[in-house]
Amino acid sequence: MTIRGEMLIGQQAVSGNQADIHAVNPATGETMEPTYVGGSKAEVERACELAETAFASYRETGLEARATFLETIASEIEGIGDELIERAMAETGLPRPRLEGERGRTCGQLRLFASVVRAGEWLDVRIDPALPDRSPMPRTDLRQRHIGLGPVAVFGASNFPLAFSVAGGDTASALAAGCPVVVKGHSAHPGTSELVGRAVQRAVAKCHLAEGVFSLLFGSGKEIGQALVKDPRIQAVGFTGSRSGGTALMATAQARPQPIPVYAEMSSINPVFLLPEALEARGEKIAEGFVGSLNMGAGQFCTNPGLVIAVKGKALDAFIDAAGDGVKASISQTMLSPGIHQAYEQGVNTLSSHAKVREVARGQLGEGANQCCAGLFVASAADFLTDETLQAEVFGASSLVVECADQAEMMRVAAELEGQLTITLQMDDGDVDAAKALLPTLERKAGRILANGWPTGVEVCHAMVHGGPYPATSDSRTTSVGSAAIHRFLRPVCYQALPEALLPDALQDANPEGISRLVDGKREA
Amino acid sequence: MTIRGEMLIGQQAVSGNQADIHAVNPATGETMEPTYVGGSKAEVERACELAETAFASYRETGLEARATFLETIASEIEGIGDELIERAMAETGLPRPRLEGERGRTCGQLRLFASVVRAGEWLDVRIDPALPDRSPMPRTDLRQRHIGLGPVAVFGASNFPLAFSVAGGDTASALAAGCPVVVKGHSAHPGTSELVGRAVQRAVAKCHLAEGVFSLLFGSGKEIGQALVKDPRIQAVGFTGSRSGGTALMATAQARPQPIPVYAEMSSINPVFLLPEALEARGEKIAEGFVGSLNMGAGQFCTNPGLVIAVKGKALDAFIDAAGDGVKASISQTMLSPGIHQAYEQGVNTLSSHAKVREVARGQLGEGANQCCAGLFVASAADFLTDETLQAEVFGASSLVVECADQAEMMRVAAELEGQLTITLQMDDGDVDAAKALLPTLERKAGRILANGWPTGVEVCHAMVHGGPYPATSDSRTTSVGSAAIHRFLRPVCYQALPEALLPDALQDANPEGISRLVDGKREA
Repeated sequence: MTIRGEMLIGQQAVSGNQADIHAVNPATGETMEPTYVGGSKAEVERACELAETAFASYRETGLEARATFLETIASEIEGIGDELIERAMAETGLPRPRLEGERGRTCGQLRLFASVVRAGEWLDVRIDPALPDRSPMPRTDLRQRHIGLGPVAVFGASNFPLAFSVAGGDTASALAAGCPVVVKGHSAHPGTSELVGRAVQRAVAKCHLAEGVFSLLFGSGKEIGQALVKDPRIQAVGFTGSRSGGTALMATAQARPQPIPVYAEMSSINPVFLLPEALEARGEKIAEGFVGSLNMGAGQFCTNPGLVIAVKGKALDAFIDAAGDGVKASISQTMLSPGIHQAYEQGVNTLSSHAKVREVARGQLGEGANQCCAGLFVASAADFLTDETLQAEVFGASSLVVECADQAEMMRVAAELEGQLTITLQMDDGDVDAAKALLPTLERKAGRILANGWPTGVEVCHAMVHGGPYPATSDSRTTSVGSAAIHRFLRPVCYQALPEALLPDALQDANPEGISRLVDGKREA
Repeated sequence: MTIRGEMLIGQQAVSGNQADIHAVNPATGETMEPTYVGGSKAEVERACELAETAFASYRETGLEARATFLETIASEIEGIGDELIERAMAETGLPRPRLEGERGRTCGQLRLFASVVRAGEWLDVRIDPALPDRSPMPRTDLRQRHIGLGPVAVFGASNFPLAFSVAGGDTASALAAGCPVVVKGHSAHPGTSELVGRAVQRAVAKCHLAEGVFSLLFGSGKEIGQALVKDPRIQAVGFTGSRSGGTALMATAQARPQPIPVYAEMSSINPVFLLPEALEARGEKIAEGFVGSLNMGAGQFCTNPGLVIAVKGKALDAFIDAAGDGVKASISQTMLSPGIHQAYEQGVNTLSSHAKVREVARGQLGEGANQCCAGLFVASAADFLTDETLQAEVFGASSLVVECADQAEMMRVAAELEGQLTITLQMDDGDVDAAKALLPTLERKAGRILANGWPTGVEVCHAMVHGGPYPATSDSRTTSVGSAAIHRFLRPVCYQALPEALLPDALQDANPEGISRLVDGKREA
């Protein structure tokens, strides 16, 4: 048993002196042991000081050593075994297969970043050799590489206790970039966090890295979170959560004497456009896929399809009927926490009591506490366009169908959407022209556009963009999932006419690490 | 004669209805014709509306068409001929060779971005092909490219009337990224701005682009600048200027309902470290190079060497004597504007009247108004470390030598530096260990580190970083000079399982534009 109710500061395990934190089993309402005692500014201070010290050596680890460290974290997490899955099940109410899958994804993600580190493209090596004979002025030797920004603060998310938490995508990509990480664990799954944190801590020791490469703190947002973001040694922030939480961190980061980037992935209702031919030809099948995506994980995904947009008519009526039947037949699932359940109920009640909204269906209430009963609602595009509360995210298995008078109104709805993580097109061959007309608008609204699939299920790969315009995220230029996430924690440095003895390995003529380079503007493999 | 005192909104030329703006010849104090009448929110509105409309087509121009447009701008600027140089000389007080060189740099920069656009690496094409047989879950086809952020607001800088102004680096890189540009011209050189603006306007027409791709406005910061940054269609801001100006734009951009990135290049004192062996061996020669760099363009460069750091002793005394002689012998030069001259005088007076600062030398006062007399000052490291006013930028040919007790104190000074654009090492072979000890600190403080050269003179190339940690710039992850500047105006979009008919050219299987791609994590040329 390795759960002791402690924070991890470098290689130490400590207890705080602030308010107690207990995990609650959302399925039973039962309070779980052990007690976590929230940290204070003193723990933030120690973790950041260690991180700053560790940055000096960690940022210059060789590619192989850094990749091995990421792989060691993955092995250590796998080595925890079933204790991790059982604790996560108890703390989150999520079922075993989902958590086993999430563990696989988390470890796969760490290994993907190991391969990215080894390939070295993230260094973006550029060499413009000296041109001593150029006229009117000679050119001196100029070389560029990227280095880590510095220590990074990562906020664990509630809805992915493994993949977006202690050793999730933010942590993996920051470590890959050479940045030490101080995690604020989510209070809803402290035991899961501690188990994973200890795995990272062991990997740090096994790889003989400076201990400050990783720390894990617990506590309230005010005590720990704000102090972390304000700490002068922290150079970037990774966050997945609510819009209010994300914008608060953005404001704190901007108000620092030295502002720093915040990568906050906040809210998205992931519109799905049902184009006419597809709707006509296979509305019921689409409804089936839709209800499956809506209910996945009790709808507690950033990519949950919370909005469906189509032109009204018989085909849409048939879709709504079929989707309504699917929702009615679906059994409620346990939500992640009492707070999330309460917010979901509130969001659904706002919709069902809204004068301009028609409730189509609610799911079956099953047993246990904090149950998410799916909900399907309908509103007209005209009302949607004039009432921005209908664009608010309801975190959970609720979705709103927006009925448009015609294609033109569908275009207007598209144009009025807020920034999104994803937008989906359900389309057949005959819908290509309609899709082409929509696409330029959709590209400006979302980080990912998909056809004939569902937005839930975010592949961890090189081409993924889990990002999008504000308010989906705080920074549309980035992704928080996939290998490109590493770029969030890097900055370029140019070295002009430095003696070979001073040049970093990656920039030396001999190219000892065999990295792809841009030499005088030409790519050399 | 093409100077008419007008703003350019798309293909129109208009006059505003706010306060009059006149260029002043800084060498004579003479007010120049014509009168420019500042624009108001109405002109911002029209320029932004046109830019938004133009974005739809401009962002999807083919690589060749976009590159040709950038080259056409360069030809049109060259086509203005001597009128441009003479007007710029009169408006800025800068000498002919400098402005001819700057014109060459500006046009070379546009052509560099043309080559960057053609090469297509900026699209960062990534393809992760479908893996239908993968278990436990198949992978669907995922493709990524980058697209322009949207219309960009560019603020012309006073100190480079061509290279950092209407068609300077910010405009060139934004246009290269597929973003329309609305420029707020600098009030100190409106005639130069109008001439260049009309050249861009002609290039837009010749290339048959949507007229809103480019507009040029004049007016006070409050009327035009703030309105531009607040306009919901503007998606990014490029700025070179003072720290107060840059931070004001940052605050406005963050306070928008949708915050946007601001790329502000603000202030830097560009420390020069004189390492012991080099100082001992060639202190006088270094002094000569230093005074040359200090006086270049009357010190009105973001990269002017405003701070010299060395260990005290005979060698440093000899350097200070030699540099002092050089400064004493230097003849004053006309500064860009009365305002800049006034600020310089104030900065130099603060130093010369500072109790802890010793004035070593002032240059000769030559003829004409707004003259910059170079200044050289000395302070102890102990005083420098305890008085942050000594780190303030004095924009002009003034520099402060910081005398350190020993190598350790030199390290402390390095650690206390604010973010910088550049840091220079003067070093010989015997200084390598000292340089190695400093380097990790310097990398965290500056965007460019150079050895045995001078920071003035910023090469426009692929490896250049003209950027650095706050307050040198607002965003250390970027550069405003060199081909990597294009990345500031781009964001990634992922396309999942889109039918070939909907895929942008760059992502189609056939790769019709022959762009380098990352396929399943492997680089294909």
